[in-house]
Amino acid sequence: MRILAATVTPIAFPDPPLLNSAGVHEPWALRTIVELTAGDGLAGIGETYGDAPHLGLVRTAAQALAGADPFDLAAIRRTVAAVVTGHDTTDRHGLTGTPDPVAKVFAPFEVACLDLQARSVGRPVHALLGGRCRDSVAFSAYLFYKWAAHPAAPPDGFGAALDPAGIVAQARMLVDRFGFRSIKLKGGVFEPDAEIEAIRTLRAAFPDHPLRLDPNCAWSVETSRKVAAATDGLLEYLEDPTPGIDGMAAVAREAGMPLATNMCVVRFADLRPAFSRAAVGVVLADHHYWGGLRASVDLARMCDTWGVAVSMHSNSHLGISLAAMVQLGAALPNLTHAADTHTPWQDGVDVVTAPLPIVDGAVTVPDGPGLGVELDRDMLARLHENYLRCGVRVRDDTAYMRTVDPAFRKLRPRW
Amino acid sequence: MRILAATVTPIAFPDPPLLNSAGVHEPWALRTIVELTAGDGLAGIGETYGDAPHLGLVRTAAQALAGADPFDLAAIRRTVAAVVTGHDTTDRHGLTGTPDPVAKVFAPFEVACLDLQARSVGRPVHALLGGRCRDSVAFSAYLFYKWAAHPAAPPDGFGAALDPAGIVAQARMLVDRFGFRSIKLKGGVFEPDAEIEAIRTLRAAFPDHPLRLDPNCAWSVETSRKVAAATDGLLEYLEDPTPGIDGMAAVAREAGMPLATNMCVVRFADLRPAFSRAAVGVVLADHHYWGGLRASVDLARMCDTWGVAVSMHSNSHLGISLAAMVQLGAALPNLTHAADTHTPWQDGVDVVTAPLPIVDGAVTVPDGPGLGVELDRDMLARLHENYLRCGVRVRDDTAYMRTVDPAFRKLRPRW
Ligand SMILES: [Mg+2]
Ligand SMILES: [Mg+2]
Repeated sequence: MRILAATVTPIAFPDPPLLNSAGVHEPWALRTIVELTAGDGLAGIGETYGDAPHLGLVRTAAQALAGADPFDLAAIRRTVAAVVTGHDTTDRHGLTGTPDPVAKVFAPFEVACLDLQARSVGRPVHALLGGRCRDSVAFSAYLFYKWAAHPAAPPDGFGAALDPAGIVAQARMLVDRFGFRSIKLKGGVFEPDAEIEAIRTLRAAFPDHPLRLDPNCAWSVETSRKVAAATDGLLEYLEDPTPGIDGMAAVAREAGMPLATNMCVVRFADLRPAFSRAAVGVVLADHHYWGGLRASVDLARMCDTWGVAVSMHSNSHLGISLAAMVQLGAALPNLTHAADTHTPWQDGVDVVTAPLPIVDGAVTVPDGPGLGVELDRDMLARLHENYLRCGVRVRDDTAYMRTVDPAFRKLRPRW
Repeated sequence: MRILAATVTPIAFPDPPLLNSAGVHEPWALRTIVELTAGDGLAGIGETYGDAPHLGLVRTAAQALAGADPFDLAAIRRTVAAVVTGHDTTDRHGLTGTPDPVAKVFAPFEVACLDLQARSVGRPVHALLGGRCRDSVAFSAYLFYKWAAHPAAPPDGFGAALDPAGIVAQARMLVDRFGFRSIKLKGGVFEPDAEIEAIRTLRAAFPDHPLRLDPNCAWSVETSRKVAAATDGLLEYLEDPTPGIDGMAAVAREAGMPLATNMCVVRFADLRPAFSRAAVGVVLADHHYWGGLRASVDLARMCDTWGVAVSMHSNSHLGISLAAMVQLGAALPNLTHAADTHTPWQDGVDVVTAPLPIVDGAVTVPDGPGLGVELDRDMLARLHENYLRCGVRVRDDTAYMRTVDPAFRKLRPRW
């Protein structure tokens, strides 16, 4: 079996005005869909970021992969590395992060190859990741401060959430619809005291749901320590309160809860300094920038070996990425926390024919071959039309926020 | 595809009187051959230790695996763990070591499952371990002090090696026959000064071959430091000079060369303390006790992430284990040192129809499906007859040495 063709399709889908420390989500979120076709009618799919510099490298890599053996991932990674080396794909917003562009470009091809491999042997992808460790993968309700609508647009169906009452109402909506059993609040948007108050209000409204707060490095070490003290006993973990491994370590020494990260530990080279300084108690795995599913399995095993817990990070994504996260979660013995997902915010829009449903806060691990989802070609074409029309080429939450608040700056820390 | 039957066959093959810090190899070395048969005429093979307590657990595990999916390694590991938990399989000689009996019993089944998986997809095992990173795997000439013959037996074909001249002659024989490009001396047998002299003599005779010395913890920290100073500039690494992570760390602080280990880092739980104390610069991977090939890939990746080099450990073994080591080595980007192997000492006896040849000090990575070797059923039957007749049931180098030297004791450290 050889890769006959690798098709790369940029897509765009509507995204609500979700606020974060870098600004606000634009009206269109971008992704790139990768499809590898092989002989015998087999194909494999993957999903990754849609930012133009990244897309360009994914396209170049795709051309280089024609004729490759989808079972020889080491050779495919070498091919990707040869294409990527020397290019800088650091994103502007710092939210799809990683200083390892090879890992980021390789990831969708790795997922598509594993999909192909798994289809060719008639087994789910998790069978190629070490086997099944659980029957369902739990996800958390991912709360965002948000406006009622994008500027000059009609209100979206989710409503505004700009204070504790709005956040609780949003949590209620997500928990009612999806049955989530843990809750994450994206913070770093308002003064720390306002976000502490939101957490307290959530705790009162959801006494049994583990809570997490993620301000994306909006706080200094001192502010982080104050928030940690004020939320002690309320959070299962505090995520990326402050920038850098040293800053996180300084917060961790005094915080009562574990610190989690998807910002200061984003590549294998970060593990040794972060773990030796006890900077983090939870690493959020993300196959999109760690270099695929197998690299994420490796990451989780390293965390286990060093006594660090594992959760899972999300950016705006569609159903191929969700399926990949579920296959990964199925194979991780130590996925000790519910994974993040933006799925509810995509409001049913998807690029697969039958998205894996979130029921009772979890996705049942599929038994079928491959990732367990099929590309919806009509939707792919429509979402690609969106991409061609929408004008967004690089995600830039900060620039978009400035169209509303010209004085806005991305500051890490801000408080 | 399901496992229809798991056949477990203990075997014995002649072994020369190789000396080490625990005593001397008995006339028969034991191994256990595992064969998994599945539908469609597919079978997969694995090889492990032959000591009776271990064999018993392998047999019990084999019975429990009928009907299992050879692709669901996590489920197979759980089945093995249920069988093994509560049993102590620590070996007496401390040379096939590991305090993780589940890993040791699981390993041959994992190798056999990977052989099955790889055959079912028509690809070499390394394709399931992440893909090919090299075209050949280098091995070292593994020198032993040895007697000319077992007591009351005629001389074997290898000759005695009981002084520097004998060691150099042995090295010459192995390098001439197999083309080895690096040389390891098993020490811990004679006074340290005698072994230092052997290293110096080897260096003079083989000026371009990297050298290593492995006394299997025969020395105190103080003696280890003295030997390290005396061999500074002569060794690529010094292997397990002294017992324990703390002892190794104390030696490493003063030694000019990296310390290597297959004795103080033998399970994942050892990595964190060993690496944080900088006790070792090289870990010798061994899939037989680390829990199989995938676990060994994980181990190597952890070493890479923590800046530690990787080599490979060997006990007396036959061609299935050699093939597994080659498949593993093919998939490791950071196999930075030639692997150990006892292969020459088995003098052509093997349990596979066409053993992978060592040429120019390396084995070419096979391209065919699975491990790349086939079970020789006639030889399996003959080696099983050996097992039934030979009377050895547990490897015990120390007790065997006492039949010659009743005062001998296994001391670690001895000097
Ligand atoms: Mg985060
Ligand atoms: Mg050793």
